[in-house]
Amino acid sequence: MAREVFQQELKEVQERLVEIATDVTRIMQSASHAFTKSDVALADQAISLAELTGDKALALDELVIRILARQSPVARDLRILVSALRISASLERMGALAGHIAQIARFRYPGSAIPESLRSTFVEMGVLDLALANKIVKLLADPDVDVARSIQAEDERVDELHRHVFDTVLGDDWKENAVFTVDVTLASRYHERFADHVVDISAKLSYLTTGEWND
Amino acid sequence: MAREVFQQELKEVQERLVEIATDVTRIMQSASHAFTKSDVALADQAISLAELTGDKALALDELVIRILARQSPVARDLRILVSALRISASLERMGALAGHIAQIARFRYPGSAIPESLRSTFVEMGVLDLALANKIVKLLADPDVDVARSIQAEDERVDELHRHVFDTVLGDDWKENAVFTVDVTLASRYHERFADHVVDISAKLSYLTTGEWND
Repeated sequence: MAREVFQQELKEVQERLVEIATDVTRIMQSASHAFTKSDVALADQAISLAELTGDKALALDELVIRILARQSPVARDLRILVSALRISASLERMGALAGHIAQIARFRYPGSAIPESLRSTFVEMGVLDLALANKIVKLLADPDVDVARSIQAEDERVDELHRHVFDTVLGDDWKENAVFTVDVTLASRYHERFADHVVDISAKLSYLTTGEWND
Repeated sequence: MAREVFQQELKEVQERLVEIATDVTRIMQSASHAFTKSDVALADQAISLAELTGDKALALDELVIRILARQSPVARDLRILVSALRISASLERMGALAGHIAQIARFRYPGSAIPESLRSTFVEMGVLDLALANKIVKLLADPDVDVARSIQAEDERVDELHRHVFDTVLGDDWKENAVFTVDVTLASRYHERFADHVVDISAKLSYLTTGEWND
């Protein structure tokens, strides 16, 4: 009976992680559109959803601590719960990073935060970050889904685009003002960190399935 | 007897956190000097110590999970261990952020990553971040030390300097090239995030002492 209660509690933790990850996909989608299309309404939406998601992550942490206290799990069960705390922290950071991207768009509105020469790069970064966040939703719902390789490939492409932004900004042809330089530097960094967190979460989930860290 | 073993284990967790935090102060000290004085030897020192500190944080997490499994702590004891996991994650990030500052210095060497007009600002940011990290060492060694207010004041000053860097870079008088703009934008962000983590850790420790979140 206690085991059944515990399984039920683990299921709730999982469902809440899926919910928070789904929020994160929405924040990134709004933030990326806000940033690449100077849409201030979407920016505001991303910023408030990021706050809400931070609160949900805190509430989930409290639930996990209550379960740890009541059930005193060991071995794999314990690792699942500790991993849930870490994944919740990563998801909270991903929401905050996407929120930062939206804030840049909001700050420059009605102007654009990206010069034309980098627009398609940031559109692609946003698409990749969104695809990566969607894979985390799937992976949290079913840890056996085989997405590890595509996550790695997409993260590498994000890193490549991040370097491309830097090469562009630091190249001889870059004639944009410092406002653009600052905005694209930070936005690129936020996109890249967002993808890093996806890789971290995927490594933690793979550890739970295989028992071996492979990061 | 079990209680004595547990107290001994908690003591080891605390000592390891103090050790990792002490590493972080060294990384920030080397990184800040490397960055403001273009010292590549100090930059290398900061970068390798940051890697080592990441490994120590991982090892500490494993120790905490073993204690959770063996002792099944509840109430305050459980919260101390969960907080230790979070503090270890924050310290690891602080080491990584300071490492990133050192990497900027290394990348620009033998040139400087900061234009003269911002040197004193970054010297002050480095001094503040180092002071903040030192307070975390003290707080981890003795959670009753009364440093919460000075941590808040110093974090606010770091935020002020961070805004000053942005105002300078985005002002009409800024004539530096994009390399400087990118370097100081990222370095300022890393200093600011470093201080944020100190505030987070101090809030978690204050929660352990008072039982109330005050962040």
